[in-house]
Amino acid sequence: MEQFRNIGIIGRMGSAKVLETIRRLKSYLLGRHLHVILEDRIAEMLPGHNLQTSSRKLLGEVCDLVIVVGGDGSMLGAARALAKYNTPVLGINRGNLGFLTDILPEHLESQISEVLAGNYTIEQRFLLETEVRRKGAPIGQGDALNDIVLHPGKSTRMIEFELFIDGQFVYSLKADGLIIATPTGSTAYALSAGGPIMHPRLDAIVIVPMYPHTLSSRPIVVDADSELKVVISENMTIYPLVSCDGQNDVTCTPGDTLHIQRKPQKLRLIHPLGHNFYGVCRDKLGWGSRLGQGHK
Amino acid sequence: MEQFRNIGIIGRMGSAKVLETIRRLKSYLLGRHLHVILEDRIAEMLPGHNLQTSSRKLLGEVCDLVIVVGGDGSMLGAARALAKYNTPVLGINRGNLGFLTDILPEHLESQISEVLAGNYTIEQRFLLETEVRRKGAPIGQGDALNDIVLHPGKSTRMIEFELFIDGQFVYSLKADGLIIATPTGSTAYALSAGGPIMHPRLDAIVIVPMYPHTLSSRPIVVDADSELKVVISENMTIYPLVSCDGQNDVTCTPGDTLHIQRKPQKLRLIHPLGHNFYGVCRDKLGWGSRLGQGHK
Amino acid sequence: MEQFRNIGIIGRMGSAKVLETIRRLKSYLLGRHLHVILEDRIAEMLPGHNLQTSSRKLLGEVCDLVIVVGGDGSMLGAARALAKYNTPVLGINRGNLGFLTDILPEHLESQISEVLAGNYTIEQRFLLETEVRRKGAPIGQGDALNDIVLHPGKSTRMIEFELFIDGQFVYSLKADGLIIATPTGSTAYALSAGGPIMHPRLDAIVIVPMYPHTLSSRPIVVDADSELKVVISENMTIYPLVSCDGQNDVTCTPGDTLHIQRKPQKLRLIHPLGHNFYGVCRDKLGWGSRLGQGHK
Amino acid sequence: MEQFRNIGIIGRMGSAKVLETIRRLKSYLLGRHLHVILEDRIAEMLPGHNLQTSSRKLLGEVCDLVIVVGGDGSMLGAARALAKYNTPVLGINRGNLGFLTDILPEHLESQISEVLAGNYTIEQRFLLETEVRRKGAPIGQGDALNDIVLHPGKSTRMIEFELFIDGQFVYSLKADGLIIATPTGSTAYALSAGGPIMHPRLDAIVIVPMYPHTLSSRPIVVDADSELKVVISENMTIYPLVSCDGQNDVTCTPGDTLHIQRKPQKLRLIHPLGHNFYGVCRDKLGWGSRLGQGHK
Repeated sequence: MEQFRNIGIIGRMGSAKVLETIRRLKSYLLGRHLHVILEDRIAEMLPGHNLQTSSRKLLGEVCDLVIVVGGDGSMLGAARALAKYNTPVLGINRGNLGFLTDILPEHLESQISEVLAGNYTIEQRFLLETEVRRKGAPIGQGDALNDIVLHPGKSTRMIEFELFIDGQFVYSLKADGLIIATPTGSTAYALSAGGPIMHPRLDAIVIVPMYPHTLSSRPIVVDADSELKVVISENMTIYPLVSCDGQNDVTCTPGDTLHIQRKPQKLRLIHPLGHNFYGVCRDKLGWGSRLGQGHK
Repeated sequence: MEQFRNIGIIGRMGSAKVLETIRRLKSYLLGRHLHVILEDRIAEMLPGHNLQTSSRKLLGEVCDLVIVVGGDGSMLGAARALAKYNTPVLGINRGNLGFLTDILPEHLESQISEVLAGNYTIEQRFLLETEVRRKGAPIGQGDALNDIVLHPGKSTRMIEFELFIDGQFVYSLKADGLIIATPTGSTAYALSAGGPIMHPRLDAIVIVPMYPHTLSSRPIVVDADSELKVVISENMTIYPLVSCDGQNDVTCTPGDTLHIQRKPQKLRLIHPLGHNFYGVCRDKLGWGSRLGQGHK
Repeated sequence: MEQFRNIGIIGRMGSAKVLETIRRLKSYLLGRHLHVILEDRIAEMLPGHNLQTSSRKLLGEVCDLVIVVGGDGSMLGAARALAKYNTPVLGINRGNLGFLTDILPEHLESQISEVLAGNYTIEQRFLLETEVRRKGAPIGQGDALNDIVLHPGKSTRMIEFELFIDGQFVYSLKADGLIIATPTGSTAYALSAGGPIMHPRLDAIVIVPMYPHTLSSRPIVVDADSELKVVISENMTIYPLVSCDGQNDVTCTPGDTLHIQRKPQKLRLIHPLGHNFYGVCRDKLGWGSRLGQGHK
Repeated sequence: MEQFRNIGIIGRMGSAKVLETIRRLKSYLLGRHLHVILEDRIAEMLPGHNLQTSSRKLLGEVCDLVIVVGGDGSMLGAARALAKYNTPVLGINRGNLGFLTDILPEHLESQISEVLAGNYTIEQRFLLETEVRRKGAPIGQGDALNDIVLHPGKSTRMIEFELFIDGQFVYSLKADGLIIATPTGSTAYALSAGGPIMHPRLDAIVIVPMYPHTLSSRPIVVDADSELKVVISENMTIYPLVSCDGQNDVTCTPGDTLHIQRKPQKLRLIHPLGHNFYGVCRDKLGWGSRLGQGHK
């Protein structure tokens, strides 16, 4: 069990409710005589805070624990910044989602108190890293906790590409794009695109073609140690983009290659005791809704 | 506008709540000095009712309106019996569904009163009829408001068959079965099997292959005037079944043919004013539930 | 049966094979003493042709028949230009597709000869027209033989919109976009996106949500007479695009509305005798490929 | 590298072509002075064979290598019998499939020669085992290389059940059934039912609901070490069946529980050098077929 003494706070920008929750969180932590460090951008929104601040980039270096206030999107950004420091992260839900941010604001004090007392579980979530190469030389890179998406940028043009897994040719495809997702990302965009749900504990990557021309294409699940390569066809006249968690696009040209593999560092995600992946699925995915079926 | 004087009542068997609603409905109608005729099976459950009774088969002949108390399943059975008499039908929902039965028990008096006053809409819903032929001679037939399903009977065996539409060969397929559905049935079993939702006003039939071996098979929507023929392959050693609205199985042998077309008579389905197909979809299909998607 | 004396030729640009086929077609038609009119853009590629030329726009006015040499994409462009003149159109396949262009170059003389002799069938294919309105005033419009697609332009951003059919609210949705397709378009992009195949003779429109956040969204098929309205949410910060047959984008702003309905004029598409929609499906969609399934 | 001296032969029954291939295989092996043991059922079809015979059950005990002549179905049966002996298995394809049986009859001598010379790869494929319990006491069990399927037996009746994974409640579902598949089975029935393709090397199990009433249900992929429990609802009036690789049904009653986990022993599957999983996918799943899409 880890002792949390230096606690960083990251918040989603532009939301009064997030600021309100951060104020409450700050009061609670200071009341517990803990050292609180604010991410600098959110600190600007809290004039007169009297706290140490830090860039998001360095927050992981100075904190034993980082608390993210916002939605899953906020957590994605934090995860990409913090993974390399191995700093555990906890999420307070102020978005309308919550696969990653599972403390509700109304339970803030009671659940943070439990976590500080050591009553929590910790999950290792792996990230993907991608490098785009042109004639062999790197021209861009990115990390993703959810997914790396190759897409045409302008969405009515399809992309032609070839997929290789661990050096083996898989297929050449014409499609709107390709999603490469972690288990964490399997309940996000990849799910809309027809991919399976993967349990967070599973060491696997799913590859989901987006609206492929070939009706027989299907999502493929491979071991998380696999090395993926996507070769963008020379035949195309468009410049597709590569997005990591929906951000930080790299623009490709025909002939470029994407190399995708698991990052060595993992996000350490803290959950209150009693957290249950399937419970979140039931809640978020509407598994309670039943079809109206007459004849059965 | 039609005058409803002779009103039949059909109810789902085996439910105390249905009987309770029927008693309340009966009191209301008698209070309005209308002539009430009970379907004979449900009449047996209501000793001392002092009302005329009729078989389900003849109910359409003696009534100007039939009210069905139950779920969509009860309506399916009533529809198949009543379509040939052109008798309008109204549904009171006592099941857990309600694409077809759209009056809630708590609004019984107010909404029936509106309908009796002529404030209603009437929808024509077509039925399908099928005939199974062996060496050209009919060996069984059935009607369906929702769907006609060819299935193996014992569900781990696949069926091999050929499909013809209006005399044109469509494909030969190995599959778990085949669903042929009306717009009414498009929100029932066919929807689970990947078929589209079809608006009730659309004159169309959808053909949905069940777990086909060919990954490129897709639901096909054709005009409701189409004549469908399914030829069960001679190569099989199993005896598939044909179900109409999930009932009344006909057992086929290899080489048999199914002939499916629209029935000339339609179900006349009454809705209270304000009924809205898409509203029912939103309610029944959980269109309110949103995915938890982090990165958008 | 119509007499074809003034025959227009349209060709896909930038292909030597198309030019070769056009030369052969021109020779054949002139040998039959018919009047040949070249679309002006393709005429420039054929120096010394000695033929009348015309803009694509006016070609329909001066011709009894237009022959399109290229792929289905070429036919889409021709269809949008020719529908208002009611001029019949015939396609010679020089692309790698062929739902619309069904004469193979090697059968050019024999099949054109049959068509000129009156041995053909003629199909009416309807088009959709859309108008984008800002505060009620039109800001753009377009026609489509295949589909009208609302998409984010930059494909990792989702769109929020509300759909109304014939004035009735259907749903509000967060999605990558929305496809509204004709039966002709049902075997194109809408099929990749999970829509059903619709027979060309069916008077219906299919509405296919693209990667919706709501897992319970499904394609909806409605009567072709339906009037569709899509309201782009005021809450968004992106400027989605509307494409017609993948072309001619109109840029929308939050709050804009799309109005979509069937065009009064139809494309008159000529097929050689023996043309069969399901045969083309089998050929183009790979309905021959079978799954490798071990246990059945 | 293993030395193969005692080689068993299993063949699919009822096929003249299989017998022909077995005769050729037997000649080849005897010519190499190896000891050949025939499975007893196939031995009866080869009068005058002069070879040792063995029941399928004991074949694994007396052989260093077993060669299966037939399709993937034959291999499934052999795998279930041989896994506990750890005997390597090689397949010669005489069915119309071949994810598991990858030597073509025409290459029999050359490829067997390579395998005998030690030029092969060996893959570990795990099996699932299931036990059905009634009030806690076992009433039936089975092993599967592909999949364990819970189904209604009579396919128009749905099943209601609850799923637990590693003791955690996942969902309660009304569906046609449930497929639990290995990576090996992911390209078989589970694929038709919408499951993802899983690479054979992946240690995972996929759970695919069959035509669920809840539109938001999706395939779930979990670690192969997971323990699954399916509780058949007490509310049902039907007696569902449990099949292993499509065989050996166990009949359940309401309230029974299925317990499913990975078997300790694995199938050791031999491939000639150059075998490539994705190559088989491209070949078997028709990944070459392209959609006819007009507008892109």
